[in-house]
Amino acid sequence: MSHAPRTDGSTHTAVLADDGGTRQLKYAFLGPVGTFTETALLQVPEAAAAQRIPASNAAVALDMVRSGEVDGAMLPIENSIEGGVSATLDAIATGMELRILREAVVPVTFVLVAQEGVELGDIRKVGTHPHAWAQTRTWAQENLPRAEHVPTNSTAAAAHELLGDHPGYQAAICAPIVAEQTGLKVLARGIEDNSGAVTRFVLVGRPGPLPAPTGADKTTVSIPLPEDRPGALMQILDQFASRGVNLSRIESRPTGQSLGNYFFSIDAEGHASEARVADALAGLHRISSNLRFLGSYPRADAQQSAIEPHNSDAAFQAAHRWVDQVITK
Amino acid sequence: MSHAPRTDGSTHTAVLADDGGTRQLKYAFLGPVGTFTETALLQVPEAAAAQRIPASNAAVALDMVRSGEVDGAMLPIENSIEGGVSATLDAIATGMELRILREAVVPVTFVLVAQEGVELGDIRKVGTHPHAWAQTRTWAQENLPRAEHVPTNSTAAAAHELLGDHPGYQAAICAPIVAEQTGLKVLARGIEDNSGAVTRFVLVGRPGPLPAPTGADKTTVSIPLPEDRPGALMQILDQFASRGVNLSRIESRPTGQSLGNYFFSIDAEGHASEARVADALAGLHRISSNLRFLGSYPRADAQQSAIEPHNSDAAFQAAHRWVDQVITK
Amino acid sequence: MSHAPRTDGSTHTAVLADDGGTRQLKYAFLGPVGTFTETALLQVPEAAAAQRIPASNAAVALDMVRSGEVDGAMLPIENSIEGGVSATLDAIATGMELRILREAVVPVTFVLVAQEGVELGDIRKVGTHPHAWAQTRTWAQENLPRAEHVPTNSTAAAAHELLGDHPGYQAAICAPIVAEQTGLKVLARGIEDNSGAVTRFVLVGRPGPLPAPTGADKTTVSIPLPEDRPGALMQILDQFASRGVNLSRIESRPTGQSLGNYFFSIDAEGHASEARVADALAGLHRISSNLRFLGSYPRADAQQSAIEPHNSDAAFQAAHRWVDQVITK
Amino acid sequence: MSHAPRTDGSTHTAVLADDGGTRQLKYAFLGPVGTFTETALLQVPEAAAAQRIPASNAAVALDMVRSGEVDGAMLPIENSIEGGVSATLDAIATGMELRILREAVVPVTFVLVAQEGVELGDIRKVGTHPHAWAQTRTWAQENLPRAEHVPTNSTAAAAHELLGDHPGYQAAICAPIVAEQTGLKVLARGIEDNSGAVTRFVLVGRPGPLPAPTGADKTTVSIPLPEDRPGALMQILDQFASRGVNLSRIESRPTGQSLGNYFFSIDAEGHASEARVADALAGLHRISSNLRFLGSYPRADAQQSAIEPHNSDAAFQAAHRWVDQVITK
Repeated sequence: MSHAPRTDGSTHTAVLADDGGTRQLKYAFLGPVGTFTETALLQVPEAAAAQRIPASNAAVALDMVRSGEVDGAMLPIENSIEGGVSATLDAIATGMELRILREAVVPVTFVLVAQEGVELGDIRKVGTHPHAWAQTRTWAQENLPRAEHVPTNSTAAAAHELLGDHPGYQAAICAPIVAEQTGLKVLARGIEDNSGAVTRFVLVGRPGPLPAPTGADKTTVSIPLPEDRPGALMQILDQFASRGVNLSRIESRPTGQSLGNYFFSIDAEGHASEARVADALAGLHRISSNLRFLGSYPRADAQQSAIEPHNSDAAFQAAHRWVDQVITK
Repeated sequence: MSHAPRTDGSTHTAVLADDGGTRQLKYAFLGPVGTFTETALLQVPEAAAAQRIPASNAAVALDMVRSGEVDGAMLPIENSIEGGVSATLDAIATGMELRILREAVVPVTFVLVAQEGVELGDIRKVGTHPHAWAQTRTWAQENLPRAEHVPTNSTAAAAHELLGDHPGYQAAICAPIVAEQTGLKVLARGIEDNSGAVTRFVLVGRPGPLPAPTGADKTTVSIPLPEDRPGALMQILDQFASRGVNLSRIESRPTGQSLGNYFFSIDAEGHASEARVADALAGLHRISSNLRFLGSYPRADAQQSAIEPHNSDAAFQAAHRWVDQVITK
Repeated sequence: MSHAPRTDGSTHTAVLADDGGTRQLKYAFLGPVGTFTETALLQVPEAAAAQRIPASNAAVALDMVRSGEVDGAMLPIENSIEGGVSATLDAIATGMELRILREAVVPVTFVLVAQEGVELGDIRKVGTHPHAWAQTRTWAQENLPRAEHVPTNSTAAAAHELLGDHPGYQAAICAPIVAEQTGLKVLARGIEDNSGAVTRFVLVGRPGPLPAPTGADKTTVSIPLPEDRPGALMQILDQFASRGVNLSRIESRPTGQSLGNYFFSIDAEGHASEARVADALAGLHRISSNLRFLGSYPRADAQQSAIEPHNSDAAFQAAHRWVDQVITK
Repeated sequence: MSHAPRTDGSTHTAVLADDGGTRQLKYAFLGPVGTFTETALLQVPEAAAAQRIPASNAAVALDMVRSGEVDGAMLPIENSIEGGVSATLDAIATGMELRILREAVVPVTFVLVAQEGVELGDIRKVGTHPHAWAQTRTWAQENLPRAEHVPTNSTAAAAHELLGDHPGYQAAICAPIVAEQTGLKVLARGIEDNSGAVTRFVLVGRPGPLPAPTGADKTTVSIPLPEDRPGALMQILDQFASRGVNLSRIESRPTGQSLGNYFFSIDAEGHASEARVADALAGLHRISSNLRFLGSYPRADAQQSAIEPHNSDAAFQAAHRWVDQVITK
């Protein structure tokens, strides 16, 4: 007997397995262990007791979802400083269809760590992921003006290398959790340029019933820009605006075909089962039939959208009843 | 046993009556006999053998339709020189709902008639309807520079008064058909300022099944302008434009409440049973729920509208199928 | 020595004449004496002591302005019940350019008058202008259900005919002022269907310096709808909307060429010397270069428009300074 | 005596120096030597004989421009596969104002290089920049399925490390030019996933007279999205659309303040000295007065824009003359 993965965000740590017993849930995340992504995954109630599997990149994590190897994958999608995470945006917009099941927002704060005995003045090279380096530029220029950046695959990897035999640098920039996990000495805390920076993550699963609408939801779509019609982006935005659907994120991404060939990754306020969002989606499909629906899911901030009366479900239903009656009477 | 009026434009001259027999069809028209409106009514195949009843004004004619006294009423709605016919526009936009069943376009051409023996030089006063006077200003200023206008209720009435004992003028301006009917002498033909002027008429009936779509149809609506939202007219127009629905007529009319309080009478290309028109109507209902649907009916000129692929019925159906599948999967 | 007409609304009753003396101001108005139009003209401070000349129609009055025979003409342009006054709209939109110098709003109220001795029950026919008849339909249907309407050229003319030998009717509907002037007996007062109805009039003069902006002004334009571009009306409206310029009147009028060929007569809030209005006018000129500017003048209601900061004169000036500096630096 | 830098794209290799002699032009580029950016810089006629200085990142290169240390800096701004280059977009949108002086488009093609004697089967790790790795995924998965990626700061650096004592990998992915410069063995050519991929570069200088319009130009702006007005992005796009100005690139970037806080980096067709572009810039300034003008410069593809008559310089001039005449007459 086969069972669909749980995609409703409820607090389960095991699913009914094919043999009639239960099996532990499994989630992939952008590894290695100790990144902010793992912190985001731990916000999912089911994840604490689930098996958490680090993946080397977004494409790998999503292929594990597609193949059924894991029940979901947690990936960064947007950073308040660095912007959209291209690898995630591109990986969910192509290949077998997937669905975003929930979002998580994690504050971004960094520490500078080193082996015991190393002081600031000793540091010539600093290992960290380029994004972390970008987000600590000001602190580094003031406190480590001559230090060179050694790029690593993750902030956690940068810290772990310090524990090895011949680290390529004297200090690492990483998340606070990694300092705890490794026992490395913290030379400085809160070294990020923009305190208040956050990263937004999404939990991605296979298509299935949508999470139930909560009144405070988001809908994510990926929409190729039709080439042959001028003003196409305005037409796309108008599908939302004319139904009173606000956008909370819009990101242009190249399709990879040529310069000027885009798709837009958009987060809209509302749930696809709400009439104004469904109507906007139908309008988008007419303009750009290759758009991809990437899910409707609760907002991390649980903030309700204000809906004008003429954009309410009731207004849409009344309008359709009226048209039906007009045509068939 | 009661029967709905025939509204499909087919060639019937009688309907099944309550006593099981048949009764003759009856049509009202803006009288008197001999106006362009009667000419328009005679374009309706069923009208030749039907009973034709002149009405003194649009409101009276429509009340005859509403009460069931007649099966339809032919009324002028728009003149290429004088513009919208306010009395008709206002009378169909209020009161019990009605439907436009078909349209007719009649060329507007005038003759100057008089009793035998009267010459141009004898004419001091000319009787005619103010609209006809307005449409023959240039000819009259050149040929009858000192003649005074005596307003009459219709061009036909103007001519008929010449046959009476003490006509208040020496000549009348009327339609050619009236010259024939009365035997009055034609002093000048084609005296209209704008040759090529036409008047458009509509045949109005009670609500019922819409005339079947022909691929070359019009839909008429009357839409109160919501007061409390700036840009409301643009929002209304956008409901059509965003679905590729062209407008062939737009007329503002006061609601009668105060200056600046309007409704718009609009003819759109297409039939309410076509998806792009139905979707535009639904959008309009949300913005202005007191709008009034006044009918979908074949265009007099039988000109097909060009429909872009993304506004076709097929595109709308595909879009709705896609949204349904996205929500329920 | 020649002098331009006074167009600034100041209280002058005479202008310096060519011979060095002064001459009395002259104003035409849509006659005859005793219409609401004369009441409107009397609202103009200069008009009380000026010579007031009744004109038989709008075209005649405007030709007197154009020829210099009068200093201005007062004409009805809009009625809260009947809508735009086509004759005025068309007459100012064609021919030699003119300018609206001020507006006046007059309440529309009617009385039923007759000769001494005539009672309601005696009335078989009622003389009045068709507009007045249209605006007293309800009262007439209730109180004079069998009375027939005899159209006259004006409500005042209807009353004056009752003083003659063989009036064609027993009673007339006219303005209260005419009852006073004629001494006819008032059978009923306030018989208009919509109490609160008003007519708006405009004082039209020759082009010259615009009346100074007051902060509560209107600008009137007449804009042919370009045929060859779909969505042209939306483009026209957008020129106003995108600069935050509200419209207080919009009226479609046929150009007279063919059905579907329109110009729009529009009143916009603001003065052409204000940057947002000037910029909108420039945008309109690009789209429809045959548009006609018909004047900027104080609003009768003296109501100030709310202007968003980004549409203020300061914002426009700052924007142009910035662009100039960007281009030339 | 001080001199402004040459910013007109003319073929000069030296400028008049402060001591009355001449000095050699200097250009920074995103280093190291051998990247596509140097290839782009070599497309600038003046650059061949100029001093070319590699910079470690976009911010450093632009600071060299700002300080006057160099006359310009060549930086990647957009890649047809990977999208906008965030570091460049952010660095030119903040800090002291700069100007884009010209653009260059360079085809992106990669080779796999190694030391003599190394074969495909020997490769366990591949060094290259993450962007290059991203652009050769398909080839690598097919031909080096087990190879691990070692991130480097540039593709050229990856190749140069192979010449050292203890390279951290057996092969590198780099530009063809680097294979020539280093003499490394080419194991595979044209290994990029998307043949036809290109990167677009911009030459950035200090503000000064704009390059003369050529009829085939681009204008780049960076526009913060006003937070407090819904539909602000549509308003921004409408400033271009309503003047017939097409966009060739639009990129959203976070302002760094919070999620949902964006600026848009936009390339529009046309030159700021053309009326339709200048008018759009003025409109943008009113909506978002902190926008940043980043230059008008010739298009690399020299493709002329089609300009509708109503958006031509002549139409703008005629419109402004008309408005001036209307106001002042």
